[in-house]
Amino acid sequence: MKRIHVGIIGMGTIGTGVAKILLEANSPLREKLDTVPVLMGIADCNPDAKNKIALPPAVTFTTDANTLLHDPNIHIIVELVGGATIAKEIVIKALENGKDVVTANKMLLALHGSELFRKARQHGKSISFEASVGGGIPIIAELRDGLIANKIECILGIVNGTTNYILTRMTKENVEYGATLKEAQTLGYAEKDPTMDVEGIDSAHKLAILARIGFGVDVNCENIYCEGISKVELSDIWYAHELGYTLKLLAIAKKRESGLELRVHPTLLPHEHPLSSVNGVFNAICIKGSAVGDSMIYGRGAGEMPTASAVVADIVDVALGRANITFNTMKIFSGQCERVSIADMKEIKTRYYLRFSVIDRPGVLAKISGILGNHEISIASVIQRQAKEKGHVPLILMTHIAEEGNLLNALSEIKQLDVVKDQTRFLRVEE
Amino acid sequence: MKRIHVGIIGMGTIGTGVAKILLEANSPLREKLDTVPVLMGIADCNPDAKNKIALPPAVTFTTDANTLLHDPNIHIIVELVGGATIAKEIVIKALENGKDVVTANKMLLALHGSELFRKARQHGKSISFEASVGGGIPIIAELRDGLIANKIECILGIVNGTTNYILTRMTKENVEYGATLKEAQTLGYAEKDPTMDVEGIDSAHKLAILARIGFGVDVNCENIYCEGISKVELSDIWYAHELGYTLKLLAIAKKRESGLELRVHPTLLPHEHPLSSVNGVFNAICIKGSAVGDSMIYGRGAGEMPTASAVVADIVDVALGRANITFNTMKIFSGQCERVSIADMKEIKTRYYLRFSVIDRPGVLAKISGILGNHEISIASVIQRQAKEKGHVPLILMTHIAEEGNLLNALSEIKQLDVVKDQTRFLRVEE
Repeated sequence: MKRIHVGIIGMGTIGTGVAKILLEANSPLREKLDTVPVLMGIADCNPDAKNKIALPPAVTFTTDANTLLHDPNIHIIVELVGGATIAKEIVIKALENGKDVVTANKMLLALHGSELFRKARQHGKSISFEASVGGGIPIIAELRDGLIANKIECILGIVNGTTNYILTRMTKENVEYGATLKEAQTLGYAEKDPTMDVEGIDSAHKLAILARIGFGVDVNCENIYCEGISKVELSDIWYAHELGYTLKLLAIAKKRESGLELRVHPTLLPHEHPLSSVNGVFNAICIKGSAVGDSMIYGRGAGEMPTASAVVADIVDVALGRANITFNTMKIFSGQCERVSIADMKEIKTRYYLRFSVIDRPGVLAKISGILGNHEISIASVIQRQAKEKGHVPLILMTHIAEEGNLLNALSEIKQLDVVKDQTRFLRVEE
Repeated sequence: MKRIHVGIIGMGTIGTGVAKILLEANSPLREKLDTVPVLMGIADCNPDAKNKIALPPAVTFTTDANTLLHDPNIHIIVELVGGATIAKEIVIKALENGKDVVTANKMLLALHGSELFRKARQHGKSISFEASVGGGIPIIAELRDGLIANKIECILGIVNGTTNYILTRMTKENVEYGATLKEAQTLGYAEKDPTMDVEGIDSAHKLAILARIGFGVDVNCENIYCEGISKVELSDIWYAHELGYTLKLLAIAKKRESGLELRVHPTLLPHEHPLSSVNGVFNAICIKGSAVGDSMIYGRGAGEMPTASAVVADIVDVALGRANITFNTMKIFSGQCERVSIADMKEIKTRYYLRFSVIDRPGVLAKISGILGNHEISIASVIQRQAKEKGHVPLILMTHIAEEGNLLNALSEIKQLDVVKDQTRFLRVEE
């Protein structure tokens, strides 16, 4: 039996899960493979991390990552430190010392993917990152290998479990955003500072990785349009439901004639869309390919063991020698991908859900729909309620497909009307 | 650029799709890879098959498969003949002549998997078969590699597009089985002789392959319990719907303390189960793994280009050298897997939907539920309608979890009651 030696740097939730699988006496890996990865060392700056699981004497524990990075007896470094600073140093040092790298770090790859891939190629080593998107879902392998015969046309993903949990609770239990967030924090589904998740930044990082694999491009994350869920109101979820739509935070990548649409925002999906029934902490990614048509992959997007499942799959891929082949033959890993031009949001075309707060007076609908019409936006359906909020009534319009630039112009004109109060809310739709 | 030479044997629908992708001027493969598979020859016993697409002069067309099988210049043979006789000879000859094999042939692998895998190992070659289950869905790679860190606990699949199309039409359009089948035949979704599909045999073949990959076992297909959809009645779909369930033909594999449950039958799924919204010709497979928990993969299960997408992914896997590593390091491909003991249907435990046809007389429900109770079967819900059919009324019961042996004993007692008419219908449930 061939042994491949593994060192884990970062013994947080995922690191602990990975160690559990590698150390398991009845490991599925032993059942399935002749070549088995062997855990040799764990590094974590917190000395107490040692006690998270019972380590056999053969496994070194150290608070100094360099001990593993310089150990010539370790072949694979598993970087689970997170963030984009120390993690980057660790990955570079590992590659320079002739080790393959496995990581779950989406931020690192989203921000420094090309640089790190060039470095890995230069040293004849590989970087594997299945766990960086979709937790236990093998989406990277599917997009990279399973759908290799396809030109990817579109990727739609629910790739953040925290926000999907919050939106699901808001939808099913009628609880306001603030209260649901607190509950998610208590349950450990949201961080104390939830910004990265709720403002869509984590989803944008994952979208940058998916775009790289799917479209072979380098992405400047800062240019991805990113709108989170912190401003979502219950009433929009209700009205959308009445119109036949479910609200989800989507990461969207679409091929255009030149460049890509890349955007993260709350999105209305028809109830029958496969993503609209993805609830709670689950993730799912829909991919449209030129040959395969529509496909979807679904599973747990976070958590100790699901994410560890993906990390260990990568470790095996490296141990068997496949990761190295993939990494060194696919152009997407050359580090030479062109930086993609991301379409301006004004150019995107979609249907829109609009919620106006208006004074209940004859002719209001005519005025608003007139302005929309002047900007080439036609209306597909209307909900108007007598129920007043603060003396105003909500007016909900669903448009046909329109250009966002036109919509923004129309909305700024409508804002000037004396019958329109408060901020007008709009949501984009995917069919 | 490295060139790997491919020969296709069998120029039916899928073969044509594969040739299209390989010959495409703007092939996604050229965009993505440095190593590119090159189509060298096509064999089909029908000389007219030559005209299905425009072949460049460099591609040989022959009616004699041996021309390709003996061509030392061809590295990969793509077997798309179908069936388990000629196809088997082709695969063996290809392996003996030092060629790797890619196939979409589920029957061949279900019936002769171990023998062919041994043969391939013996010659240091590989057999790849992503397209054999789930068409364009990369389910084999997911189960084999993506979930390698998992002990697989359960596989539930909608793996036959024909039957899913028929059941979807019956459910949504209220059309009887016979009429829907005819319609499916007209549309090309069902064969003239639909037996393999509608009686569940095709699903059983695919289940045997999934069980091999997921559980590392050899399966005797003949021992898989196999019940098709040809006896499904509209009324059962209606009543089940009222009880909160959707009817699907499922291929089911479940780990038991010893051996496996392997069964194909019409199954009731709660409306909120991810498989219950998989409609039309789409396929989907749910997998429960020890680390990853519940996951699902969804896409087009048949058709020219989706299936070709999977075949070409395999060709690339071979061309890059990964398939050979996988095939020669994973124990499931040793051809030495133990033949699994398949649980007797009498031992399975599930909830049951029962439809009795009874005479409308006081005490009938008491009699039937009394007999069920004597056999340790308790009732969860009841639908009784006044509407008579041929002087009888339907009585629908949903049971709690019960053992099938007990159910069969109870039903044979109930059959003796003079108030029970016609055949009692029962359907199994997955939650």
